Amino acid sequence: MTSLRYALPLMLLLALPSLALAVDPLPSWNEGPSKKQIIEFVQAVTAGNSKDYVKPAERIAVFDNDGTLWSEQPAYFQVLFAFDEIKRLAPQHPEWATTQPFKAVLENDHQALAQSGMEGLLKIIAATHTGISTEAFIENAKNWLIQARHPKTGKPYTEMIYQPMLEMLDYLRSQDFKTYIVSGGDTAFMRAFALAVYGVPPEQVIGTTFVTQFQIKDGEPQILRTAKLAHNDDGPGKPESIDGIIGQRPILAFGNSDGDLQMLQWTAAGKGKRFMGLVHHTDAEREWAYDRDSRIGRLDKALDQAKTQGWTVVDMTAEWRRIYPFEPAVQVQVQ
Amino acid sequence: MTSLRYALPLMLLLALPSLALAVDPLPSWNEGPSKKQIIEFVQAVTAGNSKDYVKPAERIAVFDNDGTLWSEQPAYFQVLFAFDEIKRLAPQHPEWATTQPFKAVLENDHQALAQSGMEGLLKIIAATHTGISTEAFIENAKNWLIQARHPKTGKPYTEMIYQPMLEMLDYLRSQDFKTYIVSGGDTAFMRAFALAVYGVPPEQVIGTTFVTQFQIKDGEPQILRTAKLAHNDDGPGKPESIDGIIGQRPILAFGNSDGDLQMLQWTAAGKGKRFMGLVHHTDAEREWAYDRDSRIGRLDKALDQAKTQGWTVVDMTAEWRRIYPFEPAVQVQVQ
Repeated sequence: MTSLRYALPLMLLLALPSLALAVDPLPSWNEGPSKKQIIEFVQAVTAGNSKDYVKPAERIAVFDNDGTLWSEQPAYFQVLFAFDEIKRLAPQHPEWATTQPFKAVLENDHQALAQSGMEGLLKIIAATHTGISTEAFIENAKNWLIQARHPKTGKPYTEMIYQPMLEMLDYLRSQDFKTYIVSGGDTAFMRAFALAVYGVPPEQVIGTTFVTQFQIKDGEPQILRTAKLAHNDDGPGKPESIDGIIGQRPILAFGNSDGDLQMLQWTAAGKGKRFMGLVHHTDAEREWAYDRDSRIGRLDKALDQAKTQGWTVVDMTAEWRRIYPFEPAVQVQVQ
Repeated sequence: MTSLRYALPLMLLLALPSLALAVDPLPSWNEGPSKKQIIEFVQAVTAGNSKDYVKPAERIAVFDNDGTLWSEQPAYFQVLFAFDEIKRLAPQHPEWATTQPFKAVLENDHQALAQSGMEGLLKIIAATHTGISTEAFIENAKNWLIQARHPKTGKPYTEMIYQPMLEMLDYLRSQDFKTYIVSGGDTAFMRAFALAVYGVPPEQVIGTTFVTQFQIKDGEPQILRTAKLAHNDDGPGKPESIDGIIGQRPILAFGNSDGDLQMLQWTAAGKGKRFMGLVHHTDAEREWAYDRDSRIGRLDKALDQAKTQGWTVVDMTAEWRRIYPFEPAVQVQVQ
């Protein structure tokens, strides 16, 4: 409750809104080109007297997840979850001990696993992601996220998130943007942590989905996840789900790979001022360095298009003072 | 900007929040059981000291559209739109003059149309709702909504909306509820008017969808609506889309037909206090009277379940002072 004691300072603050801008909204970003472009864009679309002003209801911002908000090496974290789930569930499936690709997962046989290819991976995903209710699946994902540790850093996966991007999400929300995740990951898997970790509520998480079935089991209604793919939220699937679920064209889109290209193109083609950004993984020491030749998170066509279209490309090494929240900030000189 | 002149009254207002409750949030509802149940529910989940308190982020309310927020007689308005579109597009399709079911629409031949059945209707929907971009389709829907008039009232369809339900939507939003539409109607069709008419933004409109395709045409990216059904948002499809798109279980659901039963069951089965409501079309004079035997908006199983489960059933005749915004309010005596 407001009391008289606070009334005067409060009024001074209201009278001096420019004071608020003195606080750096992006402290983990060096004073490089990307930070400047982000802040200039946000100011241009939010200042009431700006020719580029956008109403709050239309300030839609979309972010890829893997490689854009958290790391994606040495494999997508959701795939590592699936492998661990196979091991956890193995006692209930004695046949897996002698059946590929499950045998390969149980024996950590990387060669056999690679040989099983995409078909093998889909079997692993089906066995761990479907045939249960959404509620039970999210519970499994939460349990894994609490216990599992990243093979390189030894940290929980939910700490392998990019501090600079967290600040950007917060900054946008403070300026009345609605921040969405639009990712190739499974929607329900991401909902297991998106609110706690990114501040993104379930209804703003869009991803790959399976066909579900409403059913009443033992008198209790539940939503069963079937093994049939409903929507693959990658590449062209991203603008398709944005159109289908959000129904408004974003004014800001951020990705890191060719799987984000169509989302960036769709965002760029709207009327008025737009922001398109790519995280470029250039930091082999603090994170990973990969782009055109990577099997995971390949950034090739989108990097070319970013250059010709003048999209923002974040040089992780030069522009991010810190990568993860658990690291100290490092001062890096930007050219 | 706040000035000193307003500071004192503002503080008085802050100190006396109960003053605001003196204004009736539902003036078009008679003092019947439904109004009482709605207000009691909202107060129970919003009062900070209530044992049934629900955080604002979890105050999800879902509403069916046809027959719940606007009328659905003599046919779903979207079907009437499709018929009018066939007539508008006929010059570009000379073959329709001799091909069913298009010929029947062009000649207002109700018997031939009825004979063409669901298969015929789907052809009409495909011809008018697909094969174009989402943007172009919404433009067509908007143009129709401006020009078309309802055959009975002569009013634009966007005025055939229920004033009591508009008040309920406003009331819920004033109490930090997020109001969604979850309807068998086409998502993009509803987005053509939901914001202007109901105050529901595009990202809170969920409905039936077609598979879409992102494509670049003449250098311009677009989302093409194909004729393949992606999701039928009726019956079990409603809790399935709520789970898939919202990812949170609603605490309030409102419908009017058996197509809403599973959405109401799904809502009812959640933990904590819940509100389930049905609009019962009992008013042959001011609107329409239909329930168990109606072809459109059949209310049979859901009515039985409402009675056994104690869900709210709104008797339109007795409980609504006015139906449409264009009508004067009528004082009706509630028993």
